[in-house]
Amino acid sequence: MRLAAVARAVRDGELDPAELLDGALARATDQGSLNAVVHLDRSAAVRADGPLAGIPVLVKEIIEVEGLPFRCGSEVFADRVGAADAEVVARVRAAGGVVFGLTHSHEFAYGCTGSANRAGPCRNPHDPSRITGGSSSGSAAAVAAGIAGLALGTDTAGSVRVPASLCGVVGAKPSRGLLPVDGVFPLSRSLDHVGVFTGSVADARYAVEVLGRISLPALDSRPRLGVVDVEASPEVAAAFDDSLRALEAAGARLTQVGFDWDELNRTAVELQGPEAAAVHAELLSEEYQPDVRDRLRAAAEVPGWRYVLARERVQPLTAAVERVLSEVDAVVLPTVPMRATPIGDESVREPLLRHNRLANLTGFPALSVPMPIAGLPAGMQVLALDDARAFGAAEWVEAALVP
Amino acid sequence: MRLAAVARAVRDGELDPAELLDGALARATDQGSLNAVVHLDRSAAVRADGPLAGIPVLVKEIIEVEGLPFRCGSEVFADRVGAADAEVVARVRAAGGVVFGLTHSHEFAYGCTGSANRAGPCRNPHDPSRITGGSSSGSAAAVAAGIAGLALGTDTAGSVRVPASLCGVVGAKPSRGLLPVDGVFPLSRSLDHVGVFTGSVADARYAVEVLGRISLPALDSRPRLGVVDVEASPEVAAAFDDSLRALEAAGARLTQVGFDWDELNRTAVELQGPEAAAVHAELLSEEYQPDVRDRLRAAAEVPGWRYVLARERVQPLTAAVERVLSEVDAVVLPTVPMRATPIGDESVREPLLRHNRLANLTGFPALSVPMPIAGLPAGMQVLALDDARAFGAAEWVEAALVP
Repeated sequence: MRLAAVARAVRDGELDPAELLDGALARATDQGSLNAVVHLDRSAAVRADGPLAGIPVLVKEIIEVEGLPFRCGSEVFADRVGAADAEVVARVRAAGGVVFGLTHSHEFAYGCTGSANRAGPCRNPHDPSRITGGSSSGSAAAVAAGIAGLALGTDTAGSVRVPASLCGVVGAKPSRGLLPVDGVFPLSRSLDHVGVFTGSVADARYAVEVLGRISLPALDSRPRLGVVDVEASPEVAAAFDDSLRALEAAGARLTQVGFDWDELNRTAVELQGPEAAAVHAELLSEEYQPDVRDRLRAAAEVPGWRYVLARERVQPLTAAVERVLSEVDAVVLPTVPMRATPIGDESVREPLLRHNRLANLTGFPALSVPMPIAGLPAGMQVLALDDARAFGAAEWVEAALVP
Repeated sequence: MRLAAVARAVRDGELDPAELLDGALARATDQGSLNAVVHLDRSAAVRADGPLAGIPVLVKEIIEVEGLPFRCGSEVFADRVGAADAEVVARVRAAGGVVFGLTHSHEFAYGCTGSANRAGPCRNPHDPSRITGGSSSGSAAAVAAGIAGLALGTDTAGSVRVPASLCGVVGAKPSRGLLPVDGVFPLSRSLDHVGVFTGSVADARYAVEVLGRISLPALDSRPRLGVVDVEASPEVAAAFDDSLRALEAAGARLTQVGFDWDELNRTAVELQGPEAAAVHAELLSEEYQPDVRDRLRAAAEVPGWRYVLARERVQPLTAAVERVLSEVDAVVLPTVPMRATPIGDESVREPLLRHNRLANLTGFPALSVPMPIAGLPAGMQVLALDDARAFGAAEWVEAALVP
């Protein structure tokens, strides 16, 4: 049942929001080894009005929630409590949504595997020995496990789209600023975005329209899609090829496009490192997860002049991406070039992020939509010039891929 | 004779612009050991119309002039020629001004003494064994020596105001962006400004109105002046005290104010270093002047996270300065805490800049106006919230100080 329909049923008195909350709390309590939900608010107040009336919502633990732990996955913040609702949380509540728990984040969102956290790694519902991806690990896993139909995440280099791909759910990072970052513990202020996890693109669109206070017009024709050839594992490459054939069969016009991945990634990395190191300059200690601590120390070594040059490249790189996106309705590519890998293998970091930083650097919207594939899931990333095109194309793609 | 009057006389046919140019060329040729003018354009075309009709103008050698050397004071650019006029040069010409030569700059404007240049140090017209200050060394010295009545300079940390103070002329750094930096070889893009040197505040105001394409209303009452207590040499401190008494006698209302110099300077330095190092990242070589090379290498070591934190401090620091400036018409203080020092003493760098970076960091306008003092000159800096207040207060101060 779609979010819009659930909320309508709650408003109409056909669904009891207290029962919805009890169900969500029970499923979260039964999460077993997943480690997706790291805190439950059993006293959350339910609502029966608003566009998210009664919808149980999970929030990534780096997004501040008044009165709930604000640990950011870190032992350093073990006793920290949220002083006020982040703006996006306030919008969830204003819309009638029920924030009932917090989800696992790679410590301070500075990692893409979901393995480094004071509470241990988050586990993939499709195979608990494998990573969820991150840093919005718990939100992706919780939606994949059916604990909630809507969870908030953040995405600075792919942290919504990567775990969405590895967990087999929809992850949407709207255009920069559409969902406010106020009250989110910063990772890299130039690149930080808030995003959502849902079971369908329709739900993601609905949540983003409500929380972004915007209305997105539908796509009015079969889309023209730019296809990016990227290196991927044989299974992901085959799933992507099959998906392209399905899109073509459904009427999409495909054209090859390309981006300067090396330059885009180098620039995003040289922005993110110094900005993250600045946030943690006075906090960093031996209590951090070793993986996060070591990478923050390395990030602190990036010289200022490299950061300055990276900032100067943002505008021309964004203009170049804009030119590509302007020629199509959306661009599609594998979100990540592999499926979930075993927990503990940290070598996957660069491939996981390689095709994701572009949308943070440029601010263009991007979603990950599950592709048909046997076994562990894999996602197709849909990138576009604006939110209407991104969500419209993603919705069309999803419909074409689900037989 | 004021610039406005000269231009009017040229337009009215009472002065021959060719004779004005010949006089300026002759004076520049006779500069002796000053090293103020580093290139002359003997074929400059004269004009007899426009608000700067026939006025001979000198341009700091880091400001690009079509067809003239664009050496920036560096052996590295020994053979470089300007491809197009910088915007401010184009505005000089559009107003009828005659660009007849280039003035000495501390190499790449990265220094405040005026001593490091492929052509050797610039010398103070009041004592050729002493520095002019810099980096707009030659423009200050040329106006002080009477070679030209108007010269362009640039100011990133005090590079107009410092040499104006040490050479005994008026140096004006208008508010950020009023005079365009397009076509100026960058030093630090966040802090760079273009400014002017003249013999009087009235001339500075006239030149800035013409080149900034703006009209600045006059001050309509005796100003309320904020006075900053700064450490200075006994002679400069005494001259400043005497000047304050003269201002009070003329009717100014004085009040004590203060700024957080340590924080302002630290922030400006942490912005300037990485930005300068970024500009020179691919150019820097053993051919640079040792002083500039060594400081650029040190600047390249500033870590990115410090630059990021410095950027975050700009807005609150600017707001704090704005609060102080809002309570008065202008703030006055010694431009630099000493008079011109012997060439070769590089220890003066920090005191020369200490009270100047504030106006680059915040973008507020500032002028240096000569104070009455026996022997070597010294300037009073006039800082204000906007150009009308800055030029109005400086004009009032100048009138009160010149008996």
